[in-house]
Amino acid sequence: VQAEILNVGTELLLGGVANANAARIGRWLAGLGVDVYRQVAVGDNPVRLANAFRRARQEADVVVVTGGLGPTQDDITREVVASELGLPLEEDAEARRVVEGFFARRGAPVPPSALRQAVIPRGARVIPNPTGTAPGLIVECGAGTAILLPGPPAEVEPMLADAARFLLARLAARGEAGTVIASRTFKVAEAGESEVESRIADLLAQANPTFATLAYPGEVHVRVTVKAPKAAEADGLLGEAEGAVRRRLGDLIFAVDEKTLEDAVGQLLCDRKLTIAVAESCTAGLLAYRLTRVAGSSAYFIMGVASYANRAKTAVLGVSEESLAACGAVSPEVAREMAAGVRTLAAADLGVGITGVAGPAGGTAQKPVGLVYVAIADAAGAAATGLHLHGDRETVRQRAAQAALAMLRRWVLARPAAE
Amino acid sequence: VQAEILNVGTELLLGGVANANAARIGRWLAGLGVDVYRQVAVGDNPVRLANAFRRARQEADVVVVTGGLGPTQDDITREVVASELGLPLEEDAEARRVVEGFFARRGAPVPPSALRQAVIPRGARVIPNPTGTAPGLIVECGAGTAILLPGPPAEVEPMLADAARFLLARLAARGEAGTVIASRTFKVAEAGESEVESRIADLLAQANPTFATLAYPGEVHVRVTVKAPKAAEADGLLGEAEGAVRRRLGDLIFAVDEKTLEDAVGQLLCDRKLTIAVAESCTAGLLAYRLTRVAGSSAYFIMGVASYANRAKTAVLGVSEESLAACGAVSPEVAREMAAGVRTLAAADLGVGITGVAGPAGGTAQKPVGLVYVAIADAAGAAATGLHLHGDRETVRQRAAQAALAMLRRWVLARPAAE
Repeated sequence: VQAEILNVGTELLLGGVANANAARIGRWLAGLGVDVYRQVAVGDNPVRLANAFRRARQEADVVVVTGGLGPTQDDITREVVASELGLPLEEDAEARRVVEGFFARRGAPVPPSALRQAVIPRGARVIPNPTGTAPGLIVECGAGTAILLPGPPAEVEPMLADAARFLLARLAARGEAGTVIASRTFKVAEAGESEVESRIADLLAQANPTFATLAYPGEVHVRVTVKAPKAAEADGLLGEAEGAVRRRLGDLIFAVDEKTLEDAVGQLLCDRKLTIAVAESCTAGLLAYRLTRVAGSSAYFIMGVASYANRAKTAVLGVSEESLAACGAVSPEVAREMAAGVRTLAAADLGVGITGVAGPAGGTAQKPVGLVYVAIADAAGAAATGLHLHGDRETVRQRAAQAALAMLRRWVLARPAAE
Repeated sequence: VQAEILNVGTELLLGGVANANAARIGRWLAGLGVDVYRQVAVGDNPVRLANAFRRARQEADVVVVTGGLGPTQDDITREVVASELGLPLEEDAEARRVVEGFFARRGAPVPPSALRQAVIPRGARVIPNPTGTAPGLIVECGAGTAILLPGPPAEVEPMLADAARFLLARLAARGEAGTVIASRTFKVAEAGESEVESRIADLLAQANPTFATLAYPGEVHVRVTVKAPKAAEADGLLGEAEGAVRRRLGDLIFAVDEKTLEDAVGQLLCDRKLTIAVAESCTAGLLAYRLTRVAGSSAYFIMGVASYANRAKTAVLGVSEESLAACGAVSPEVAREMAAGVRTLAAADLGVGITGVAGPAGGTAQKPVGLVYVAIADAAGAAATGLHLHGDRETVRQRAAQAALAMLRRWVLARPAAE
């Protein structure tokens, strides 16, 4: 089964926004065993969209179109697809319920223009849109299938489960089972790409499964991809590949697939029944925000203090005026006092302190932009680590929070799990 | 002058990496006045690349290809382009210098396989690659021009200046001056896409400038795009278009282009010489993090408290046990006490309090997931607003922080600027 991804939107060609849908739908189709052989983006132009859709239909069994389903004049996908397939456009009751439901949830009246989104090619199946107004559509298109999804990636994501169900039912009805492509990603935060590559060099040379490394700020991912005729075989191959990766990377791997570093830290804190509080200067809330992204984090996260001004450090966290004066706000001493102070304030088992120079201003020869101290405090005391991070203000902040999470994970890993 | 972007690489279709080159080259071409009418990605497959290149060449004056220029078997772009254009492949002295230069800078011997990258279509011009081994190439292709660039976005970026020079010289030689395309984006946070569209409905029907709306969670962008023969005319048209948009949207517009809502709020706080502190429950650091993304935010941001546990609300912020017991942690009363409490604790001019149910658990019939109260406190007292936000945990948190920033902006806008 072969698919083409067709993204509609002039903004994609101008490059003002990244084409997040192309990547997301590529992963989604690969996970369903559908091979993507081409991805095309065109502007909000009916002639070009019609040409692109016609070609896609000629060459692919499945065409996934994103964008152009909204209520405005620019939104041309429904019209073009209906015209290309020779289908009349009709208001559909189920599509209308999707549109009306969006406004009902907000207690707002339905603008007449929004109902344009309920006028769809005859016979199309409606995919509910839990976060937006435009219904998704699945249209049979000769021997193939067209799936129409809205443009905003945040709307697309929650529609993919329904779309997958409809698509797989349609492929099953046509008696087509694809080769299953399955993939698993292993995540490392405490080693760079070169070190990870040298540890798995023998695996990188293989063909099926294939291994690849991907570098992100503060993280390296190892992706394993297998192909097999059936899901069970693909699972078996993935399991073997996972063993091979784990033998080489051990507990450097903090999580698999969608799990994040904060998920991993949260699970460890839960397992060990530890509570935590954080005091942040240069990251100013980012570590607290990440720790609490995890559903259920109230079991271990007590509080965070973004102590930006020095008086917040002294008055709230109890950092000593002497340390600030003698060592400066960016120092291992102040990081330790922040960690110990917030731990006491929150009556938590662990405290974390982060202080650093995020830039662009504020750096000196002795304390340059990117110098960050992270401290962890427990009942026995506090220890600080100095980091030299590279990048702009946002990158330094992101890397500092990431490093703090990785250090926290390592610290907690070294403690035995609770009974 | 019309262009197509052609990205080569199976990883782009699998979606493991975002197609950063597509967006970057789209912006680059728009800046050169070259209109991109299509972007296509294909895998490392000679037949599909040949088909895509042939089509692109038929329909575009300029074809920019990224990827497939490396030293491995998978790298097929040079061969396919040479074959499609009927050009022999020959080792080129300048291309060889680019390859050898890369290894010389590292003091490493040149692997024989790397020299494959110096074998290029006869007559192609070489674009130096300061950060990688593969030379870029500009090939005349009938009446058109093909530009071949490597796949890694970090290698592409420093090659674009040379590529632009070569391309503009080529267009000038053909007597074609590009039309300049310029674009400006106006951002709104306090109105939905439908409301924005209805306010600018007359503009959306225009052709040059063209107006388009884009919806993001908690934000609507209005993008204006103009075309003109010269940059000065484009600027003039943009200025007129900006006036038309501003007359219809007024101070709903919080920022232009790259500026964010936190930039706008920060500027207003600076102008009015106001300081701020924030207390966050469900967003737990996100508002503090966003406010401090702005370089120079230490001028107005004093501190944030992520008061996740109730004891953080009472012991640190001074929220009353009575309010927590009688009204619950998610209530206008507690939001107001959080805002007033953190304002007092930080000795700031303004305090913000956010408390809500981010989900997925914790919702009740009376206080469902998505119910969020935002309060703003000043010397005169505190006022809270209730919000019903939709989406998953992350979306509710993002929308709550966004709404708090929008409310803060509106609050500060209503105050006169400092002398």
